[in-house]
Amino acid sequence: MTHTHPQQALAHAIRFLSIDAIVKAQEGHQGVPLGMAEIATALYTRHLKYHPQDAGWFDRDRVVLSNGHGSMLLYSLLHLTGYPAFPIEEIKRFRVLGSVCEGHPERPHGAAHVAANGIEVTTGPLGQGIANAFGMAVAEAYLNARFGNDLVNHFTYAFVGDGCLQEGVGQEMISLAGHLQLSKLILLWDDNLITDDGSTDLSISENVSERFRIAGWHVIELDGHDIEAVSAALDAARQDPRPSMLACRTVIAKGIARLQGQRGGHSGRLFEEDAQAARELLGWKHGPFEIPADVQQAWRSAGQRSAGDYQAWQARVAALPAAERAEFERVMRGELPANWQQVLHDYKHKAQSAPPAPSGIFISAEINDLLTHMLPERMVGCADLEAPTSHKRGLTAFSAHDRAGSYVHCGVREHVMGSMANGMAAHGGIIPLSVTYLAFADYERPAMRMAALMGLPVKFVFSHDSIGIGRNGPTHQPVEIIASLRAMPNMWVMRPADAVEAAECWELALAHQDGPVSMVFARQSLPLVRHTHTTDNLTSRGAYVLHEAACGPRQVTLLATGSEVLLAVQAREQLEAQGVGTAVVSMPCWELFNVQDAAYKRSVLGDVVRIGVEAAVRQGWDAYLGIDGGFVGMTGFGASGPADELYKLFNITPEAVVAEARRLLA
Amino acid sequence: MTHTHPQQALAHAIRFLSIDAIVKAQEGHQGVPLGMAEIATALYTRHLKYHPQDAGWFDRDRVVLSNGHGSMLLYSLLHLTGYPAFPIEEIKRFRVLGSVCEGHPERPHGAAHVAANGIEVTTGPLGQGIANAFGMAVAEAYLNARFGNDLVNHFTYAFVGDGCLQEGVGQEMISLAGHLQLSKLILLWDDNLITDDGSTDLSISENVSERFRIAGWHVIELDGHDIEAVSAALDAARQDPRPSMLACRTVIAKGIARLQGQRGGHSGRLFEEDAQAARELLGWKHGPFEIPADVQQAWRSAGQRSAGDYQAWQARVAALPAAERAEFERVMRGELPANWQQVLHDYKHKAQSAPPAPSGIFISAEINDLLTHMLPERMVGCADLEAPTSHKRGLTAFSAHDRAGSYVHCGVREHVMGSMANGMAAHGGIIPLSVTYLAFADYERPAMRMAALMGLPVKFVFSHDSIGIGRNGPTHQPVEIIASLRAMPNMWVMRPADAVEAAECWELALAHQDGPVSMVFARQSLPLVRHTHTTDNLTSRGAYVLHEAACGPRQVTLLATGSEVLLAVQAREQLEAQGVGTAVVSMPCWELFNVQDAAYKRSVLGDVVRIGVEAAVRQGWDAYLGIDGGFVGMTGFGASGPADELYKLFNITPEAVVAEARRLLA
Repeated sequence: MTHTHPQQALAHAIRFLSIDAIVKAQEGHQGVPLGMAEIATALYTRHLKYHPQDAGWFDRDRVVLSNGHGSMLLYSLLHLTGYPAFPIEEIKRFRVLGSVCEGHPERPHGAAHVAANGIEVTTGPLGQGIANAFGMAVAEAYLNARFGNDLVNHFTYAFVGDGCLQEGVGQEMISLAGHLQLSKLILLWDDNLITDDGSTDLSISENVSERFRIAGWHVIELDGHDIEAVSAALDAARQDPRPSMLACRTVIAKGIARLQGQRGGHSGRLFEEDAQAARELLGWKHGPFEIPADVQQAWRSAGQRSAGDYQAWQARVAALPAAERAEFERVMRGELPANWQQVLHDYKHKAQSAPPAPSGIFISAEINDLLTHMLPERMVGCADLEAPTSHKRGLTAFSAHDRAGSYVHCGVREHVMGSMANGMAAHGGIIPLSVTYLAFADYERPAMRMAALMGLPVKFVFSHDSIGIGRNGPTHQPVEIIASLRAMPNMWVMRPADAVEAAECWELALAHQDGPVSMVFARQSLPLVRHTHTTDNLTSRGAYVLHEAACGPRQVTLLATGSEVLLAVQAREQLEAQGVGTAVVSMPCWELFNVQDAAYKRSVLGDVVRIGVEAAVRQGWDAYLGIDGGFVGMTGFGASGPADELYKLFNITPEAVVAEARRLLA
Repeated sequence: MTHTHPQQALAHAIRFLSIDAIVKAQEGHQGVPLGMAEIATALYTRHLKYHPQDAGWFDRDRVVLSNGHGSMLLYSLLHLTGYPAFPIEEIKRFRVLGSVCEGHPERPHGAAHVAANGIEVTTGPLGQGIANAFGMAVAEAYLNARFGNDLVNHFTYAFVGDGCLQEGVGQEMISLAGHLQLSKLILLWDDNLITDDGSTDLSISENVSERFRIAGWHVIELDGHDIEAVSAALDAARQDPRPSMLACRTVIAKGIARLQGQRGGHSGRLFEEDAQAARELLGWKHGPFEIPADVQQAWRSAGQRSAGDYQAWQARVAALPAAERAEFERVMRGELPANWQQVLHDYKHKAQSAPPAPSGIFISAEINDLLTHMLPERMVGCADLEAPTSHKRGLTAFSAHDRAGSYVHCGVREHVMGSMANGMAAHGGIIPLSVTYLAFADYERPAMRMAALMGLPVKFVFSHDSIGIGRNGPTHQPVEIIASLRAMPNMWVMRPADAVEAAECWELALAHQDGPVSMVFARQSLPLVRHTHTTDNLTSRGAYVLHEAACGPRQVTLLATGSEVLLAVQAREQLEAQGVGTAVVSMPCWELFNVQDAAYKRSVLGDVVRIGVEAAVRQGWDAYLGIDGGFVGMTGFGASGPADELYKLFNITPEAVVAEARRLLA
């Protein structure tokens, strides 16, 4: 079988670059790039709006390789179409330490790097990529509604494997994207009937196309090796008012006689002999990493296919009235508006006299509400907990009928909610919030990990952060989840003690551009513990002395977070009355404290008896307390009962703190 | 509207017990028990095989309340049908601290308690319950194939809310249970069109019944308040060879005029006036917590409806040949066979001379293989990673056509895999293993949390446990996940250093009956570090001195786990050569070490310079190292490259350990 069609030669360029890179890397995972070469060729040469010399173009189409183990497909495309970060030398270093051609596609940190690099999101854990793509499509629809077709009007495409569609997060995405009728979301399913275990028959019987159709998707089934068929389907998809799924029947590892269409095609290794046999089978007469000039030229031309669109878009942006242009560019660059902190400073100041919100999470809700006019680019997703978390105030629902809404009712689907937020942040132009109970953080944890890995500025807001939720019982009481989030690199975990710290946390979280934040709020009330207004943001150093010892030199430091700071303050009163000089340190954000200098840390912690107070497990606290330090918190799961009774049951009280201090001082 | 039909009165008994308990508790979540009263009545009075005086009956039907926020439904049923743990006094203590009527249903720890209590699994986090029910149905099918209809032949029913079906884990369950055609799994969907946010229209448009049908389910749509219709549908479901979903259209909070059919019906509070109005509306002439004698009698009779089945089953068990009976009872009670440790002891002994398996996870695979004949009750689920984890050796696939297979190809669906394992363990008669890469533990973490909370003996086996996986890159490198699992109460985390420790870990894990275990294995090879055979299981104390200081008194203790123990051993050699007395402590299981006495801990840790060595984040290590202790490990996410290069890049080498020791000794 040989192909002389010029388009087929373009596909073979992808295929053989992939084969050669995989052979050189002596690694597996060759099936996907080989099987999807024609699909990618159709997309990149005829339909995609992109600009390799400025991948930062705000109105480019977004492409996600959700089946990230086919990373060489993407690297081949980025090389062939002329992305600066992907010269042939890098292709030859596939999976070599330090190469941009990493095992799975890695979105670089920082928008500037994305521009040169062209990788929209890091993928690998299955299902995440399509859920990110969904988030991008939501972002596009919202920004399109705000800024109009002239400025934001693009598609989001995602390559998808079987695994992505088996994962729960993928299923949640199918359901929610269908509900929201995101017409510019187009999936390219690599329907190759093979997963790592072998035939998909081993684990799935359902008609996947039907599963999409019943969720409201436009589905086309086609031959994924027929470039014309793919192209026609893409045309139809772009016209259809529904989200589209192209079920592209393909042969995995196509071209490798030994493996194609078989289980080994998924992740078996490739050898020189396979490459040679493929060259003979497909009539590819060129050496390893050698692309004939006409094919190279055709690919470079494809890389320029949107040059006109790009220039016209630039001209439209340039022609905007100055204020409109500035606002558009501000939003798309992720910059905060001038004087954005003022509402937070005012709130913080007012907290000294205003009656506090009746619960910790409602403090966050008040702040969120204040930001509505300041930050129209903020979008809130919530997993069916609107009433108890209250982050919809002043917002309307984003829906199939209203793209100007900035609140997404995600249903009871925490996982896609988190991945959607990642996609919005990766898209740009949106400040995404993701809201649920802390006990359900585990449901979206795989998405949170990806946010941390990519350094995306997503705000994960959690309510009901301890046993303080009471009667719902231990399933809803996150005793270990704060620790598990603190374990995650590049994730800030903030647990404010009152409205003042909440405003400070929000200020820091919004300013934080290169990583996600978990903002953790109590369900119960958080009475004021900061009774003196400061213009400084005390939370910015992560931990600070709230009350210094007064009755004498400091003998005890009580370190606490969130709702337990008040307990520490009450314990301090008792200890001071007993003549024990006691300081209270509030620690709303360990990650910020950890990067302070040694002298500051020492001054805060004190070289005295230290006791941690947090209604959660001790893990992690030893780094501040020392092995012999005291701790008042949880040692296991919670129970069902009123919050105040639970605090007594688990001995998290001022009296217990005092007793612990006495024990350690004795 | 009044009802005089006797069955309707039975339903009202559920409804009013629930109303009265909810009013008394002054808490919300009343909608579900009120809306599902007729469905429950049909099931419990006409179809269910159960025995309130011996809920431990192995062949009882299993019932799961997946929409756990409707807990009063279950408590009402358990009271009315005569479960000893649920006298009326407990119903009156709904959501009171210490009551068995907790906020959400809580499975008690220990089989004896389950028998008296009747709660099969803890529910609350949505989707878990139906996935547990799926696991129970798999367990039943497997045990039925082994022991025959006379001994194991029952249905699994689950009450299901909208949220359960929106969650990814629920969707994974639908797909996999349909694929496996579990004919004895029957879902009762409370199709009330309301979630916490309000109308389901806010977040879902798909035809849920169709979603089940395309996955191969038998679906019946019916009026959930029509007891006859429910009963007829249950008859049909029990006959159908497919798993069944009864889409029961209901009115949430039915009976409460102020709330029924509305958003407030989901979780608004109920008041005395509501109860009074409901009594008038429904013609219920009885006071709070008052059940008329005839209704009470009818319910008690319902609780005895399977007495004949129970006695016949007992007679059949009694009539079994002694060996068969003993084996059946052993398996169902979760007891291990006589002399079960021998294969592990032999393996451990042989490890001194046999060539080791080429990777850590393949050591586990070898052990798993050895157990096949010893433990036919062991079932393995794996998420599309058969080849790289290799835990299928000697096993056949459990499928729609072969119920005797004990390996479930779960597809790329980690979450339902974990929840299925929980369901199997809760069912009894199965030792479930759940196998995937450690990087994907987050996908099944909500299930792992439930296993820990319930104290279920599930073995979560993980491979590819560090940056040692190499080129797949940081998405696949679980730097923080070991710490996050150690944070979870009641979860053992085991990370063996070689084949000897692996055998010891397996022995401890199998013997551990009251909680889950995470067994974490390297992808890379684990050369032997235990060169002297011991009959003692050294891992049983969690940590032990592998090498004591030899060149002089101990000055340094190196504490390491898994693949890093060898690095510590190599570092010790260098330090000892330099005259620094150095001990190596292997710490395969922190949780077991933490419960040792202080003297043992002190002898292991030593009052000397301590350095932790683990290719993961430091969180948690400070408890052993102290604030000033040293650590050689990771501080952030990994990278894509060969394992040996990554260890060098991140400075996790014997030389780095030596340098850290030198720094701390200086």
